Amino acid sequence: MTQRGLFLTFEGIDGSGKSTQARMLAEHLRETGRDVILTREPGGSAGAEEIRSLVLEGDPDRWSAETEILLFTAARRDHLERTIEPALTAGKVVICDRFADSTRMYQGLSRGDLRGLVDQLHSLMIKREPDMTVLIDMDPHTGLSRAKGRQGAEERFEDFGPALQRKMRAGFLALAEEFSDRFRIVDGNRDMDSVARDVTKIVTAALR
Amino acid sequence: MTQRGLFLTFEGIDGSGKSTQARMLAEHLRETGRDVILTREPGGSAGAEEIRSLVLEGDPDRWSAETEILLFTAARRDHLERTIEPALTAGKVVICDRFADSTRMYQGLSRGDLRGLVDQLHSLMIKREPDMTVLIDMDPHTGLSRAKGRQGAEERFEDFGPALQRKMRAGFLALAEEFSDRFRIVDGNRDMDSVARDVTKIVTAALR
Repeated sequence: MTQRGLFLTFEGIDGSGKSTQARMLAEHLRETGRDVILTREPGGSAGAEEIRSLVLEGDPDRWSAETEILLFTAARRDHLERTIEPALTAGKVVICDRFADSTRMYQGLSRGDLRGLVDQLHSLMIKREPDMTVLIDMDPHTGLSRAKGRQGAEERFEDFGPALQRKMRAGFLALAEEFSDRFRIVDGNRDMDSVARDVTKIVTAALR
Repeated sequence: MTQRGLFLTFEGIDGSGKSTQARMLAEHLRETGRDVILTREPGGSAGAEEIRSLVLEGDPDRWSAETEILLFTAARRDHLERTIEPALTAGKVVICDRFADSTRMYQGLSRGDLRGLVDQLHSLMIKREPDMTVLIDMDPHTGLSRAKGRQGAEERFEDFGPALQRKMRAGFLALAEEFSDRFRIVDGNRDMDSVARDVTKIVTAALR
């Protein structure tokens, strides 16, 4: 029996646990015999990782918001062509930690209202949407303190306070409403095993 | 007296002498007291030069045509924001060796018909056209032998035969017809001083 590919993305504010959940889901699905690709954005292919470094390293003001959107779109196009599409064609499950919804949320919110530009570039150069997007919804204060506990060098997008964190949460919830067909909201304010059980249940239903 | 800025671009097939002409014009205008910025694409600003390296170095197949167009558009946006626009605002003459017309010609011709995509990205992210574009028109065979005499490491776009060289010339002439308001065609099949005299005459008239 040929299995059909499935394109799943995880979204959520920083500290929401989405990366952990993406990894746990990948492990679970592999145990059930599925062929799984776990990937992330920005990055996810050799070229996209190079673009990621170009964008995230150095002076935060080195790129304008518009140039940055173009670079992220280039990285996403490469990721899609080299990693995501071939895996889906081969019937694999692709789990991606962040995708276009993160760009919609961040660029629309934190760097001026560029959501229109993001959407136009998306429909011109990317087109593809995930089959399902799991939003790990999280109390902004909890997310913030979790995120601060593991701050690294590459944290330009995560250098924020509680007010911005609240806006980001609201931004993701608004996207979940806008794309209600593919979004599933999971309450992330619990221990990770309880969250993982919910995620597994939702995804397993979709894979049937 | 405040002088108004002027945005001039040079286009032409490789070996046409456009870079030499751009440099000679810059020198001439400086001698007449104008403030001149001589720049080039891809590149022309710190960020755009980094993107240039990313695109032009390594395996020629590392980027798809679409990703490459996105990267060049990102580089052009940076070049425009950081180098070209500020200079024009300050009343300078900006002379640029290649600009969007090169992308229109190369991507529309040598890598499949992506001209439509190039145009859509241009009108979304770049918008700006030069005030004047000087096309150094050149016999394809002469251009080819000149170009081959100085082939370097970064020659992906210049790895072609006479047939392609002919198509490129035809592509530039078609653009000159399409954008006849701003294109000026100069016969490049002569010694460089004769060509430079024509270029100077045309540009000086525009600066009055």
